[in-house]
Amino acid sequence: MRQIAIIGIGQSPVTENWDQSIREIAGEAIIAALHDAGLTSADGIFIGNMLSGQLSKQENLGALVADWVGLRGQDAVKVEAACGSGAAALRLGIMAVGSGELESAIVAGVEKMTETKGAETTSALATAADADYEVIQGVTFVGLNALVMQRYLHEYGWRHTDFAPFSINAHANALHNPAARLHEMITEQDYQRARMIAEPINLLDASPIGDGAAAVVIVPLEDVRRKFPSQAGLKRRNIRISGSASATDYLAVHSRKDPLWLAAAERSTRQAYAQAGITPADVDFFELHDAFSIMAALSLEACGFAERGQAPRLGLDGEITIHGSIPIATRGGLKARGHPVGATGIYQIVEAVQQLRGEAGATQIENAQIGMAQNIGGSGATIITHILEADRVN
Amino acid sequence: MRQIAIIGIGQSPVTENWDQSIREIAGEAIIAALHDAGLTSADGIFIGNMLSGQLSKQENLGALVADWVGLRGQDAVKVEAACGSGAAALRLGIMAVGSGELESAIVAGVEKMTETKGAETTSALATAADADYEVIQGVTFVGLNALVMQRYLHEYGWRHTDFAPFSINAHANALHNPAARLHEMITEQDYQRARMIAEPINLLDASPIGDGAAAVVIVPLEDVRRKFPSQAGLKRRNIRISGSASATDYLAVHSRKDPLWLAAAERSTRQAYAQAGITPADVDFFELHDAFSIMAALSLEACGFAERGQAPRLGLDGEITIHGSIPIATRGGLKARGHPVGATGIYQIVEAVQQLRGEAGATQIENAQIGMAQNIGGSGATIITHILEADRVN
Repeated sequence: MRQIAIIGIGQSPVTENWDQSIREIAGEAIIAALHDAGLTSADGIFIGNMLSGQLSKQENLGALVADWVGLRGQDAVKVEAACGSGAAALRLGIMAVGSGELESAIVAGVEKMTETKGAETTSALATAADADYEVIQGVTFVGLNALVMQRYLHEYGWRHTDFAPFSINAHANALHNPAARLHEMITEQDYQRARMIAEPINLLDASPIGDGAAAVVIVPLEDVRRKFPSQAGLKRRNIRISGSASATDYLAVHSRKDPLWLAAAERSTRQAYAQAGITPADVDFFELHDAFSIMAALSLEACGFAERGQAPRLGLDGEITIHGSIPIATRGGLKARGHPVGATGIYQIVEAVQQLRGEAGATQIENAQIGMAQNIGGSGATIITHILEADRVN
Repeated sequence: MRQIAIIGIGQSPVTENWDQSIREIAGEAIIAALHDAGLTSADGIFIGNMLSGQLSKQENLGALVADWVGLRGQDAVKVEAACGSGAAALRLGIMAVGSGELESAIVAGVEKMTETKGAETTSALATAADADYEVIQGVTFVGLNALVMQRYLHEYGWRHTDFAPFSINAHANALHNPAARLHEMITEQDYQRARMIAEPINLLDASPIGDGAAAVVIVPLEDVRRKFPSQAGLKRRNIRISGSASATDYLAVHSRKDPLWLAAAERSTRQAYAQAGITPADVDFFELHDAFSIMAALSLEACGFAERGQAPRLGLDGEITIHGSIPIATRGGLKARGHPVGATGIYQIVEAVQQLRGEAGATQIENAQIGMAQNIGGSGATIITHILEADRVN
């Protein structure tokens, strides 16, 4: 397969956006990404989205968005893997361009989820879990994650407050990201006093939903210099996708032998590491799927950054900040940038590219060379991992 | 890109299936396809589906189905392009295997849509159209197609009854397809007397919805003999995918300069013909998207089988039957095999493989070498075309 480069990024701010329809939100990010790439078109359009049918009564999102951004005619499709829809769409775009079938693609994630009533949105989000064996019991998506967190606290003996650094770090980084949903510094005391949602998950353990879209433009790496002269003029580092892998697990959490181990994260990360020829020690930062603080911990463990049951230690030791050994949520993460579910996976990629290009401002990681992004659909059921690397300046 | 072969097919009967959940229906077709291929696993699973979120309150269908069929761990995703979801999933599967990223894939289409109330299903189907500019006016999906048919009758001077051969042919062929939803011969008189749905579309112009799943197993053509010895023993003809293309159009019918021309069908078919190196005259049969009889006519014209406004002539002259020059709906088509929307595109592929293998029984086309299948999402908004060719016996 041909190697793939990301030559354009775009995003809309994550917010409560009642003024724009889903096509307008997607269009904003896509036009920005095309502009950033110096292009006006692309061969294919891949839209990551989970909820448009349920909440906007709109499917056929590929054609809808292609039409809206002036690319009608082009190959376009929607991809769904619950909250992992964005990265799932990227992976399909990579294979489409990598195969030689398309010469370029726009991959966007979009979600519009705040204009409906809370109960309706919560119910729609629960479709990420097993309808027949989990949801039918009345458990919500946050409820499932609360059961997992409770078990983690019990099993490994941590206190709830030991998870505070995950949220504090995310909020601190989001302060410097104009596209983030939340711009408020929080303290450990705020974390301890936050309103309980589903014990032990409180408001500051949980990521906020939101409306938003993010987009990237991908082309074959070999073409960047030859076919896209605008890129050469930018004196940017090439951003290459050196790993892409997706794995699944039992959909229902109760079916797993060990509900505290993200087997699909381990599997997809192992594949991605092998493709990139790296180990966890080579990763300069990790945009992980911190939908809940417990998920940040489980991801760090399954991906090889902490021993089983030891991830909170990384937070307490300051290793997850931008100056630590494994910075996470460097632009705010799901926790503070916000979690417009089907779009999240592409926000992560946009943020990783910002880091690798040196465009991350106050949260820039020095000499960032290799970044990893991981997007999760369901409570660990579908996990897609991408590794991005910065090459020499064009 | 590597060439792709289809080495396994499976399908569940299209029916009103209240006894099985969506995962069970999908599983039935997938297990049958794996069995037909002589395999027990595949690297990736691509699920074409439109309505699971809205009607079964279940998303994350990739992981759900992978889990159910015993392939948890594998790369799995859901693909949506309204009623074109099945073929859209196939196209992504082809690129994934073609790229070398996967060595094999299961592509399935599944839909469960009869267990909900009629109004709910009709409303969910309308999400294939433009929610903000079409559906908001109160027009249903059949209503949109009725407007197009009315315009066609007005523009070209045909009588409604001139469309009867499309439905009569589909019903006649479905009689011999055990997986078809409708097994009843109809006459021109039945057609003329059928209950009106949305003038001029009557009950016998419209395809019935249904529950069902169809699946295929794809591998690189070069591997068929080398890596899959079970295939050699079968003395089957290799079935090669020689063309795969997808194109879009304005989502809203009223935006199109000519609502009677399927521009996306013309575009995707032209690309597919070029890939296969053939012309319409080389096509031995055409599994087209006859969701409504008017769509059969428009497809025949846009794909080069009839002059503009002249497709009904093909029906009246008997050219669309299995003995004619361009047989369509050879196993019943959407009209009589039934239209479980996100599954339909894969049923078409299964049926095309049956023809090319010589397994189509009483509706077998003599010496069928090249078949074309076309799946449509929305009223012509997303159109995916595949060309299949039978190679020599292994």
